[in-house]
Amino acid sequence: MAKSDKKKSALSENEGIKEPKALSSVSAKAIKSRRQKQPSVNDLVNGITSSNITSLSRAITLIESTNSAHTKKANAIITACLPYANNSVRIGITGVPGVGKSTFIEALGKHLTSQNKKVAVLAVDPSSSLSRGSILGDKTRMEDLVKNPHAFIRPSPSGDSLGGVARKTRETIILCEAAGFDTILIETVGVGQSETAVHSMVDFFLLLKLAGAGDELQGIKRGIIEMADAIVINKADGENIKAAKSAKLEFNRALHLYPEKESGWTPKTTLCSALKNEGISEVWKMISDYISKAKSTNYFENHRMEQNKFWLLQTIEERLKSNFYNRKDIKTELQKQIALIEEGKTTPFNAAEYLLGI
Amino acid sequence: MAKSDKKKSALSENEGIKEPKALSSVSAKAIKSRRQKQPSVNDLVNGITSSNITSLSRAITLIESTNSAHTKKANAIITACLPYANNSVRIGITGVPGVGKSTFIEALGKHLTSQNKKVAVLAVDPSSSLSRGSILGDKTRMEDLVKNPHAFIRPSPSGDSLGGVARKTRETIILCEAAGFDTILIETVGVGQSETAVHSMVDFFLLLKLAGAGDELQGIKRGIIEMADAIVINKADGENIKAAKSAKLEFNRALHLYPEKESGWTPKTTLCSALKNEGISEVWKMISDYISKAKSTNYFENHRMEQNKFWLLQTIEERLKSNFYNRKDIKTELQKQIALIEEGKTTPFNAAEYLLGI
Repeated sequence: MAKSDKKKSALSENEGIKEPKALSSVSAKAIKSRRQKQPSVNDLVNGITSSNITSLSRAITLIESTNSAHTKKANAIITACLPYANNSVRIGITGVPGVGKSTFIEALGKHLTSQNKKVAVLAVDPSSSLSRGSILGDKTRMEDLVKNPHAFIRPSPSGDSLGGVARKTRETIILCEAAGFDTILIETVGVGQSETAVHSMVDFFLLLKLAGAGDELQGIKRGIIEMADAIVINKADGENIKAAKSAKLEFNRALHLYPEKESGWTPKTTLCSALKNEGISEVWKMISDYISKAKSTNYFENHRMEQNKFWLLQTIEERLKSNFYNRKDIKTELQKQIALIEEGKTTPFNAAEYLLGI
Repeated sequence: MAKSDKKKSALSENEGIKEPKALSSVSAKAIKSRRQKQPSVNDLVNGITSSNITSLSRAITLIESTNSAHTKKANAIITACLPYANNSVRIGITGVPGVGKSTFIEALGKHLTSQNKKVAVLAVDPSSSLSRGSILGDKTRMEDLVKNPHAFIRPSPSGDSLGGVARKTRETIILCEAAGFDTILIETVGVGQSETAVHSMVDFFLLLKLAGAGDELQGIKRGIIEMADAIVINKADGENIKAAKSAKLEFNRALHLYPEKESGWTPKTTLCSALKNEGISEVWKMISDYISKAKSTNYFENHRMEQNKFWLLQTIEERLKSNFYNRKDIKTELQKQIALIEEGKTTPFNAAEYLLGI
């Protein structure tokens, strides 16, 4: 104190600490080198087609990204992978929460890998972005399958629209196939519109049910029964067996009431207990029968082509609509026209013509 | 010959007959006077709202015309009639050919007119333009109803698209209601997409069936059973009664499998013999029960508003699509993109983006 006081006046200034550089040259080098390590499109395509899981995961992350540079890169990877895709069986699995989808998928997945199949498990769950949690998000629910080197599990991509989530999943299927996965299981919850999207991207659509008292279809959206190629009644064990058998009869009767499917396939009802690993090989036998039959009639290939056209037109039409309804002037005028219709001052047709003419 | 030869050289010309005037003044006057006799918008609106059937028919003809001046006039009439519309019960009736729709409608119509109801019978049949003949076209199939002053029967408008036919029918409903018809029966054949359109313009949707051996739903499109508020099994007489009763049980079981309707109504199955006039008053009682219930919960009004919004959005979206797909450049490029997808050179999503960017 005494020392410094000598040299200081009220006007003297301390030098203070030196402001650090905005970026240290050490950090800059580290970031640069990390950037250079980001694999190229070619690296990722080579990795995927040599069944490298890290490359596959990284490419899927690019598909899921909202960054436009990532999307561009993802598109290049998908296009390069297209010639290696398509060689798989794609199976959709739906059912309300609690029906045992994860247990069923784990049991089916283990059965398939034991037969030297390579199994990819994906999910379509548009609600995952609404913080309600993604199905398959908790990989610990499929403990054994997660550890299996012949299985690849990826939770549902998040997205604010079903269309966006569906697109990402369809593109992920292509990459998984290019990586050599020959069986793709796609899980969805049977309570929204997502099963229609999943139905349009799979070869076989399976509805998982429980035997229960009363209305067997409670909680299942209209039209799902019609889409199903099979109804599998899970938890058919112990005291449940009797109820499961009578549910099977009832479903068979309901399925019988629908007109024949385009595929020529008569939907089947079977019982299983995923927990006790009972009836799983029968489910797979049924799916295999379907695939052989569909391939022998060329329905399999034709159906995939129809699905491609469906997604082409679907994407176009979704965009035409969103481009129109998102216009600021249309938003305002649409509300005005709806009010006029409600007041009985115009018809829906005249209102539509007015809006289209703006 | 000898006479004329004297005056003629090789260069002489005959005068020939005089070309008649393009339009004789007499015809011109007649057409003008006929044109002047065409009733004005006001005349027709006044006629319709005073229940004048000639005015109603003439206005419907304007709705059905493809002449743009007629369409403009029709729109003015419809707008003026809107405040007088809406006070009716609209009932959709579907069933495959041969099920006895005309006989059923005649029996129901006679029952209603005997109760001082005024009944309009319309039809939606987009196939009528393809020279397959319009349903209701042959009015002689409803001999008694045709003669009844409290009934108005109009065959399906022709049109090259379901959207066009549906629009014309919906507009015709408005005029019929303004003319005092309190019960609108709309017939359609249960084999195409037209019943979805009819379902979206009625308060109550009735599926007419026959008891028969084997698959009860044969020939009925997927989803129709789900839309039905009632299944009426016709021709339940004589030797058919036993089969009809067992069909009733089967349908009840099938209906039971569907989730509850938004209206809160549980669809009913009943028997009738339209030919013998049996069970018709029971059908009407059921419909009346439905209407009272739907009105007491406000579902009736809300549902009609929803239908209006449906038609507004439907019309907009149909037009957005047709505007896009009818573009000459899009037609060409769409085929090219589909070919690229089939060759595995692009994805449906990239193809869609390319087309939208043209």
